[in-house]
Amino acid sequence: MSQISDVAARMKLESPVMAATPVEQRNDALARIKEALLAHADEIFAANAADLEAAQRDGVAPAVVGRLRFDEHKLADVAAGIDGLIGLPDPVGRTLLRREMDEGLVLERVSVPIGVIGVIFEARPDALVQISTLCLKSGNCAILKGGSETMRTNKAIFEVIHAAAIEAGLPEGCLFQAEAREEISELLGCYGSVDLLIPRGSNAFVRYIMDNTKIPVMGHADGICHIYVDKAADIDLAVRVCVDAKIQYTAACNAVETLLVDRAIAADFLPQAVEALEAEGVEVRGDEEVRAIVDVKPATDEDWDTEYLALIVSIKVVDGVDEAIEHINRHGSHHTDAIMTDDAQAAERFMRLVDSAGVYQNCSTRFADGFRYGFGAEVGISTSKLHARGPVGLEGLVTYKYKIYGSGQIVGDYATGKSSFHFRDLS
Amino acid sequence: MSQISDVAARMKLESPVMAATPVEQRNDALARIKEALLAHADEIFAANAADLEAAQRDGVAPAVVGRLRFDEHKLADVAAGIDGLIGLPDPVGRTLLRREMDEGLVLERVSVPIGVIGVIFEARPDALVQISTLCLKSGNCAILKGGSETMRTNKAIFEVIHAAAIEAGLPEGCLFQAEAREEISELLGCYGSVDLLIPRGSNAFVRYIMDNTKIPVMGHADGICHIYVDKAADIDLAVRVCVDAKIQYTAACNAVETLLVDRAIAADFLPQAVEALEAEGVEVRGDEEVRAIVDVKPATDEDWDTEYLALIVSIKVVDGVDEAIEHINRHGSHHTDAIMTDDAQAAERFMRLVDSAGVYQNCSTRFADGFRYGFGAEVGISTSKLHARGPVGLEGLVTYKYKIYGSGQIVGDYATGKSSFHFRDLS
Repeated sequence: MSQISDVAARMKLESPVMAATPVEQRNDALARIKEALLAHADEIFAANAADLEAAQRDGVAPAVVGRLRFDEHKLADVAAGIDGLIGLPDPVGRTLLRREMDEGLVLERVSVPIGVIGVIFEARPDALVQISTLCLKSGNCAILKGGSETMRTNKAIFEVIHAAAIEAGLPEGCLFQAEAREEISELLGCYGSVDLLIPRGSNAFVRYIMDNTKIPVMGHADGICHIYVDKAADIDLAVRVCVDAKIQYTAACNAVETLLVDRAIAADFLPQAVEALEAEGVEVRGDEEVRAIVDVKPATDEDWDTEYLALIVSIKVVDGVDEAIEHINRHGSHHTDAIMTDDAQAAERFMRLVDSAGVYQNCSTRFADGFRYGFGAEVGISTSKLHARGPVGLEGLVTYKYKIYGSGQIVGDYATGKSSFHFRDLS
Repeated sequence: MSQISDVAARMKLESPVMAATPVEQRNDALARIKEALLAHADEIFAANAADLEAAQRDGVAPAVVGRLRFDEHKLADVAAGIDGLIGLPDPVGRTLLRREMDEGLVLERVSVPIGVIGVIFEARPDALVQISTLCLKSGNCAILKGGSETMRTNKAIFEVIHAAAIEAGLPEGCLFQAEAREEISELLGCYGSVDLLIPRGSNAFVRYIMDNTKIPVMGHADGICHIYVDKAADIDLAVRVCVDAKIQYTAACNAVETLLVDRAIAADFLPQAVEALEAEGVEVRGDEEVRAIVDVKPATDEDWDTEYLALIVSIKVVDGVDEAIEHINRHGSHHTDAIMTDDAQAAERFMRLVDSAGVYQNCSTRFADGFRYGFGAEVGISTSKLHARGPVGLEGLVTYKYKIYGSGQIVGDYATGKSSFHFRDLS
């Protein structure tokens, strides 16, 4: 078994070579990966069958087993995804700024890959394909560690992807798959070699990663999302959106956990909303004002800070948009929050003052997703304010460097006033 | 004394209000700050005189005392800097993407301030003015901690700046000055309230900050910059640039520490370079091949990893551009590295493969600076690959949020195929 620290150190030295590969070669690699996955479908499905069998033997819940499955349908999806990715413009080598500083002294800001990215993700074989192809398209090297429940599938898929990438002439060290769980803690120690870590998974797991590495981490732990139902909301729409945001995929980070209801509309909205939610099997918890209107369980202060990831929702009555904003900024996780209102001014105030990666008017919080934003795919969703925020696609996997083309200029001449800058943006 | 954690928590809740202030108000604050600094010059100079007296009493080195000084000249500089900052376009509220996802469902990516920024900087009163005005212009709240050698000057300047900002109607909590050194460790614990830390100062200090906080840190510890002198270099220019990069400001992070010399030009370049460097009082250390040509002290392996910040330079002979690239990627700090050559291909290879924030052809590494890049000023230089890289000006102090304007859309309809996305970029 390779030591991850050695792998990462070699990868770091190879990453500039990977970064310098032309986009034609990276797209060729993606095309070969797609073909190879289709050609090796049987081996991959066989490996997946063994994983599924083991999962059933281990008593993994049926809902989870669905995510482990990799079949014709999922293969077709990832193949279509690769085609889409090939069609996206190259995020690398874009000239973001071109400025003449002085005669014969030109500054350029050019987009470049981040370098070496470590991604730790849940047991979902399609995620392995998406993440590795996003990293390759953006010119990055990647160390990948998928959930161990699909280790056989991961291994089969990874071997196909890596071989196809090498065939296209990408450097040997462009991708590496870590297989043992112990390798995660080794990866966390690779500061200096690994430029970025993207952990996906449970709240506790992401927090553990964030707390135990010096490597920059992009991602999110909590997803405490809110919908505020304003007095100027269309009640039918609001009920529909609240139900979708709670039940469409309960375990998702962008599912709603708390509804805030304007006092002025509470008596009209709450009975309909609670009826619709309960019809879908949702347990509703409310503060005292809510419970004066509808018969639901009491919510405690702890509820406002809880990500249920389950069929539970808490509801609080607030005194208009400002109290909603304050509640969200205090108790939310800066992920995605929505306002239901036909009052453009209230919407603008909410969307300006709520400090979250996504702020929506009149639609479900569940739209927070790289595919739904039209990014092709995502490597994760970030609630950090640095670098990429919200769903992270190709653009979040590049940084930039500054180039200066000079003709012998020295700073001494500018310090003494012999020369001076004239800053003129070109092209 | 206020507890920094309380200050930061209050600031966090006030930061969306600060973020929503119109640029006219932020520019008005800057104009008032400039006027107020000029109006209170005498008090500030008196405070500075007391700081300088204390520094001399404490035996602070004369070179350092120069940095502590805040006089008519520096006041005029910062006033001109504020005028320049007022003239720069608003970095906040720019629409970076506008995309129709479906009929009546529009996605926008809009630039917003980062929120609460903590800046810890060296004892330089002009830096306090630059940093606080950059933060205000970009709509951020900031906790500032300057070097204690200028505590009296900092206090006088900060009071003037804060009062002027409040007069312009900015929130009370837009700026806070920490005064005690113990408050730094308290600030490091403010994860969740402080969005970004920018430490400036010694290598050891920045590393300490990076190692002792969960808050994202932007900055750089080491500055091991290189100049590679290629066989196709103009020797006179190369000597001039190497001398400038070493001596123009020895203590700067962008000063050169190691020269790499192409074997093919070593016998011609080295005698002239060493003569010129020694004439400026620079101690030259060379590897064996260098010492076979010129009589200098030996360089050990440790030299290649050392930031001297002093009149010392190490020189190594390499076998062309590829060995130079490999040496720099292995031993450098990814800050700023230059190639001296008239061979455009060699330059392109170097600039593409050297993995640093700045890669230059035919000019001094000392150009790595926000002012010299035309950014007006900088809050620091980042060697991290996330978010801002290189000199960080206004653009590095903003992030973005995603807004969606909907009309009641739910994700369930897109999951079942009842609705579908059509992604069309607008305007």
